[in-house]
Amino acid sequence: MQQFDPSDPLITPTPSAYGYPLLVRQLLVNALVVSAEQEITYRGERRHTYAGLNQRIGRLANALASLGVRRGSTVAIMDWDSHRYLEGYFAIPMMGATMFTVNVRTSPQQITYALNDANAQVLIVHTDFLPLVEQIRGELRGVREVIVATDGDGHDVPSVPFAGEYEQLLAAATEHFPFEDFDENTRAALFYTTGTTGDPKGVFYSHRQIVLHALATAATLCSPREGQRLHREDVYMPVTPMFHVLAWGMPYIAVLLGLKIVLPGRYQPDTLLKLKANEKVTFSHCVPTLLQMMLDASAHDGQDLSGWKMIIGGSALSPTLCQAALARGIDVFSGYGMSETGPVVALSQCAPGAAPASIDDDVRRRCMAGRPVPMVELRVVDADMKDVAPDGRSQGEIVLRAPFLTQGYHGKPHASEALWANGYLHTQDVAVVTRDGYVQIVDRMKDVIKTGGEWVSSIEVEGLINAIPGVRESAVVGVRDDKWGERPQAFIVCEPDALLSGGEVRAHLLALVEANRISRYAVPEPARIAFVEEIPKTSVGKIDKKVLRQRFD
Amino acid sequence: MQQFDPSDPLITPTPSAYGYPLLVRQLLVNALVVSAEQEITYRGERRHTYAGLNQRIGRLANALASLGVRRGSTVAIMDWDSHRYLEGYFAIPMMGATMFTVNVRTSPQQITYALNDANAQVLIVHTDFLPLVEQIRGELRGVREVIVATDGDGHDVPSVPFAGEYEQLLAAATEHFPFEDFDENTRAALFYTTGTTGDPKGVFYSHRQIVLHALATAATLCSPREGQRLHREDVYMPVTPMFHVLAWGMPYIAVLLGLKIVLPGRYQPDTLLKLKANEKVTFSHCVPTLLQMMLDASAHDGQDLSGWKMIIGGSALSPTLCQAALARGIDVFSGYGMSETGPVVALSQCAPGAAPASIDDDVRRRCMAGRPVPMVELRVVDADMKDVAPDGRSQGEIVLRAPFLTQGYHGKPHASEALWANGYLHTQDVAVVTRDGYVQIVDRMKDVIKTGGEWVSSIEVEGLINAIPGVRESAVVGVRDDKWGERPQAFIVCEPDALLSGGEVRAHLLALVEANRISRYAVPEPARIAFVEEIPKTSVGKIDKKVLRQRFD
Repeated sequence: MQQFDPSDPLITPTPSAYGYPLLVRQLLVNALVVSAEQEITYRGERRHTYAGLNQRIGRLANALASLGVRRGSTVAIMDWDSHRYLEGYFAIPMMGATMFTVNVRTSPQQITYALNDANAQVLIVHTDFLPLVEQIRGELRGVREVIVATDGDGHDVPSVPFAGEYEQLLAAATEHFPFEDFDENTRAALFYTTGTTGDPKGVFYSHRQIVLHALATAATLCSPREGQRLHREDVYMPVTPMFHVLAWGMPYIAVLLGLKIVLPGRYQPDTLLKLKANEKVTFSHCVPTLLQMMLDASAHDGQDLSGWKMIIGGSALSPTLCQAALARGIDVFSGYGMSETGPVVALSQCAPGAAPASIDDDVRRRCMAGRPVPMVELRVVDADMKDVAPDGRSQGEIVLRAPFLTQGYHGKPHASEALWANGYLHTQDVAVVTRDGYVQIVDRMKDVIKTGGEWVSSIEVEGLINAIPGVRESAVVGVRDDKWGERPQAFIVCEPDALLSGGEVRAHLLALVEANRISRYAVPEPARIAFVEEIPKTSVGKIDKKVLRQRFD
Repeated sequence: MQQFDPSDPLITPTPSAYGYPLLVRQLLVNALVVSAEQEITYRGERRHTYAGLNQRIGRLANALASLGVRRGSTVAIMDWDSHRYLEGYFAIPMMGATMFTVNVRTSPQQITYALNDANAQVLIVHTDFLPLVEQIRGELRGVREVIVATDGDGHDVPSVPFAGEYEQLLAAATEHFPFEDFDENTRAALFYTTGTTGDPKGVFYSHRQIVLHALATAATLCSPREGQRLHREDVYMPVTPMFHVLAWGMPYIAVLLGLKIVLPGRYQPDTLLKLKANEKVTFSHCVPTLLQMMLDASAHDGQDLSGWKMIIGGSALSPTLCQAALARGIDVFSGYGMSETGPVVALSQCAPGAAPASIDDDVRRRCMAGRPVPMVELRVVDADMKDVAPDGRSQGEIVLRAPFLTQGYHGKPHASEALWANGYLHTQDVAVVTRDGYVQIVDRMKDVIKTGGEWVSSIEVEGLINAIPGVRESAVVGVRDDKWGERPQAFIVCEPDALLSGGEVRAHLLALVEANRISRYAVPEPARIAFVEEIPKTSVGKIDKKVLRQRFD
């Protein structure tokens, strides 16, 4: 971080002036005035107001303080999306402690590593994860206290020693807690990236970063005239977990704007669809896999999904899925970001004044990464950090500056410096950018297939294969080839009743070569087209190309 | 400003990480990517794009640098709302210099005082103000260079020595300027309050404050589902001058969102109405007087004013004016703030889910100060800093915390400490607050009339007098009275053809006493009801109660 000239004409505040550090607490202040009676529901089964949320935040802070949590402590949460999680989002950072959102889908080894690396002292754990905690308890070096969260009647008796049950601890605590101000660069939240290489890496966000992400993202989401927009009468339900990049920061935005919040617990398509209908949910964020599951689960009764605005991230929204969602009335669009970026740095909202020329045009735009959020400097650069031409064709890496990018990985100085080479955060995402600022991800740096001196985008080939009738899903990776350096290898999952051969797939792709849609180098040989039952995915639903590549190493 | 515990668990950025200070420059970055072709027009007579704005900002910075402007310099602007002003809003702070927006409606003495107090070194002055500058030039201690801004063909030859004509200086400069980063607490803008007591007081804003005001206000303005909202397809025209509290910070928000911007030059009702029609203006902020003038000027031809969203501030929006504007299709609502507050801290947007019960209810809400903007802690407190009950009746002073409040007056430590007594900014505005967080200004602290042990709101009495048929406008002040301490004194301007006596006014008010609408103490004696030709106003159109009171001192 650069040092500034000390002779800058800085403003000297009068001694009594309030300096207003940007703190998570401040996201709540306004909502308690203008939305005190607004509702928060957990699975439609329990409800309270924002005023109630505030009381529960105070009780949670007192309960945690009685267990020794202080400024600088780390409190880990292992829970599904719940009212408890939302309370932790505020109470823990508001105490000056760090909230560690544990990715419960990673392996016991990864969870153990992360809990130790983060030095988590207190663990709030849903009964569903008690078996896991029992399994790793002996290896957890820092955890002193476990709080058990039960959804039921309290009869679940954990076998690990625990400090108390969440609701009972809150009931026993007082609701007033003397939250104090502190430096806005204090750590507020921590989680571990589930990269496809190496140990999980800890990503930190400060209070300042969370607040600025909430403000900039709220302004962007609310700003379109119509379509793909958020407003104060929306009902918000996360469908990307609260343990995953702070649920894209959206719970903070929902509270900032005083929205009704629906917390769905464990994601089950039927439950999510029921909550959508009963609680009149209108705004969510989601990953493609879960969107597909919800479309499938509701296909038989044709449930009305109209009026549901949904940002898709995590992996690319395919045109096929986009069309299917639009056909069911979901106003679906893409968001772009990573664990390290806040996360939201771009959104594929419709550009002002530019009605799409056709459905295809509209779908194409919704499936792009989108245009950068205000305050985000998003560049697409070549290896010399020069901007590529915004012509929709020239490829480069997306690099970023924004007021809410992680400032490094916890205890990993080399990885941190690599992330921030040349003073820009390197996303490793390869993209093109159009003249009007839309960014389209072409590939991951490491997923580009270098064959015969040409670069082939694996994502592009996947998209074309996915469009072949009978194909449900596909993945393409580069595999070593003595003659060409690398060659594309495709894995294809067919629709249940589809009969498709490698030769047919190849014929489809060669027709696209004739139409100048892709390079001849991009078409896999028949022997390099494999039909499989399923595509391996990471814990957050991304295609796990590491696993696929290993089949050829 | 409080000091924080140095043991806070602060995030240590990796050395190469970009720390992202919040700078005015950052408001422009995104717009140049997504809105480069968006239009900015000056009076419909000259047009360029945002890309052109960016080039002109670079040229202006180079021109100013060649005149000796450096980090820490102060550049003063005396102009009507123009493309030049917008360029100054960016170029001057982006250089690390301070932009001083001179209130051209104040007296030559006040302008001289302010220019000297601010130590302005360079003065950009529209030819309309050259006579004034010629008059005071000899008294200006710091001004080294004058840049003349002409709207015409350049034939206006000023009689003061000057460095060059604005357009010619820009044409001679190169468009690339090496804008650097610096501390976000650097002074960006300065202006002088036109209070009704004492010398003008200099109010400063830092880069951080301007950016946070833009983000929080943008999020608020954009967030309603419909009505009283801003969106990316709006066309923005200021109708509160750019010299007045940075035109409420709206030019920064307009650029942040990439809106078409219409700069109307000197405010003349006919010109404003023509621009509204020709440029399809949809979003403005305005003061009541000018709104009234525009309604009057367009009454004869019934010009379509629908689709014009307009925030009213500066002084209270009266129900009568509100109804008149609504009848002409203007979506009018109130904003609340002061020179010292950023300025926007509250907006009278419609509450979510709460359709007004009646037209009267809707009008009443639109005329309130409104509900606080997110991140703003707005309290209504008694003399002991205790919150008054949010019952719509209990009165107290509005005190504030927000990330964009001025941190003190330039060189006025006592006034600064008084402003920030007890760590809250004291607005001196007396208000009530409703259960759902709407704030209604009742009076200024010094305008409350203390009579017979009771507090009477002069604004309340004015509102009731204004509703009497035949009354065009009124003002009420407290005057000394040996028996009662103070008594209300009314000044009334009648409609041209109205015949009204003091006795009739009093009879109207006494009927309201019977209806329990006001206290008997609030009704002026017949001798204290004066009919006048006009009400004295300050330079920003507020009733000048200081002048009125002086008639009785």
